[in-house]
Amino acid sequence: MENFDLLILGSGPAGLTAALYALRYNLTVGIIGGIPGGLMMESHKICNWPGENEVVGYELANKMKEQVKQQGAKFIFDFVEEILPDNEAWIVKTKAGKEFKSKFVIYALGTQHKHLGLAAEDKFIGKGVAYCATCDAMFYKGKITAVIGGGNSAMTAALYLADICPKVYLINKRADLKGDIVWLNKVKEKENIVYIPNNNVIDLTGEEKLEKIILQTEFLGQTEINVDGLFIEIGLEPNTVLFKTIGGELDEKNHIKVAQDMSTNLKNIFAAGDVTNGSNNFRQVLTAAAEGAIAADSVFKEFSKR
Amino acid sequence: MENFDLLILGSGPAGLTAALYALRYNLTVGIIGGIPGGLMMESHKICNWPGENEVVGYELANKMKEQVKQQGAKFIFDFVEEILPDNEAWIVKTKAGKEFKSKFVIYALGTQHKHLGLAAEDKFIGKGVAYCATCDAMFYKGKITAVIGGGNSAMTAALYLADICPKVYLINKRADLKGDIVWLNKVKEKENIVYIPNNNVIDLTGEEKLEKIILQTEFLGQTEINVDGLFIEIGLEPNTVLFKTIGGELDEKNHIKVAQDMSTNLKNIFAAGDVTNGSNNFRQVLTAAAEGAIAADSVFKEFSKR
Repeated sequence: MENFDLLILGSGPAGLTAALYALRYNLTVGIIGGIPGGLMMESHKICNWPGENEVVGYELANKMKEQVKQQGAKFIFDFVEEILPDNEAWIVKTKAGKEFKSKFVIYALGTQHKHLGLAAEDKFIGKGVAYCATCDAMFYKGKITAVIGGGNSAMTAALYLADICPKVYLINKRADLKGDIVWLNKVKEKENIVYIPNNNVIDLTGEEKLEKIILQTEFLGQTEINVDGLFIEIGLEPNTVLFKTIGGELDEKNHIKVAQDMSTNLKNIFAAGDVTNGSNNFRQVLTAAAEGAIAADSVFKEFSKR
Repeated sequence: MENFDLLILGSGPAGLTAALYALRYNLTVGIIGGIPGGLMMESHKICNWPGENEVVGYELANKMKEQVKQQGAKFIFDFVEEILPDNEAWIVKTKAGKEFKSKFVIYALGTQHKHLGLAAEDKFIGKGVAYCATCDAMFYKGKITAVIGGGNSAMTAALYLADICPKVYLINKRADLKGDIVWLNKVKEKENIVYIPNNNVIDLTGEEKLEKIILQTEFLGQTEINVDGLFIEIGLEPNTVLFKTIGGELDEKNHIKVAQDMSTNLKNIFAAGDVTNGSNNFRQVLTAAAEGAIAADSVFKEFSKR
């Protein structure tokens, strides 16, 4: 069983930045995760990373990964399956059946965008289908777009798009939008937001890029609308099941409750990135990275006390 | 008087990133500050910026500035002198005598190097007295220099100077240096660093340029040493005087008390970067940038409620 000073679970921006800082503190670091980059990999272009005008998600991810690799992190391409306490340390078991041990753990397993679950969905990612208006709206300036969802993120996405697009369809499977009254009012006021309630998206079509959304209403059958872009804003879910299993404390939206130093209620387990309720719940590559840095700094402070 | 949706005070990583996010929310943004980059400009190389293996401080600063400029921020090369409430808005007066108005302000004025507080100190700034070895060491190549301070920044400054100067005095008011063991060992090994403990600098003298440092030791009285350059490395203090003047709440170390959303106790004034007590007081380019993003997001949420 391999030992590390610090085990990082998750290889998105939070995990990678935590590794970067921990390595500069001379700790040995193992990072368990899939393809490094996390949600960055889903972002066609990232325009709000300071210093990079427009960077393709996987390029930024790759730069971060290479940097961390050069500093000496060990990447374990695998998935966390179980976390077990072992005296003063933690043992992490992976899907591939390996075990790793460390006194300190940074839990940075992120969130995932809820997907519609349509077969055509993956095909159009970056080619008309996006999951983050803040990140990708600008690519659809002057185009016809649609947003799926019925909550605050769907409404704010629609409002954001409505400022730069001639027409924005807001498609909700329920009758009513649910969220802050400010957003509700603004959505109503916006003349170029076309609200389509009681509709399910059942298919996406197009040649190279997304062209049509196929909708279905109960009793009324199918309709289709032509769009250039579709933002799927039906929510994100934090990957906190494992954390909860070992007694970890979550907030009402299943994010890990963290203190200012990124500590959790579990001894020597820190958390960082989209999985936490930190950074005022503003989940960005940048804030995830910053939380990773703070978590690593806190680990180092604890480590130095030994 | 020029109006903006948002006025950002300070053009370091926090201010620049706040601008980046606010511009992407389509707000009009004015940034008041000196040369963009803040403390990044003083950093020879930044090694813990995610995605950049080693980046020269001013290069990263320049990239951030260009990005923000392209997005349409208005840079006001000037210094904030006064902040005044004006009904539901704030008026900011600058050193050059201009006035700007905005409902929302992000206060990101960072920190500055502590001064000794000697009458002669200001007289010799740029004429023998400096506060940043990374920036100014080269002006003293081949000369006799001194560093005042007892921590990591004093030690690294002394080490940096020792490579290019025949003799470097390291003057500490305490008996022992305090900081990372790596630096302590290196300082001990360097033969041209002369360590002077238990001494206070009580005066600086010279005709046109700094020539002598007057030291005082308890019981032993005064001595003087001849130097060409003096680097004052006794720490950083937040630029919060203006904020305090208008009733802003500070913590015990004079940093601005911020909530998770970077709001302060003053209505519609948010704060970000080294000037705040956020990010677990871990002050990095990265955490400053993240705080800027969070502050801009909070401003946008308030702005949208109007």
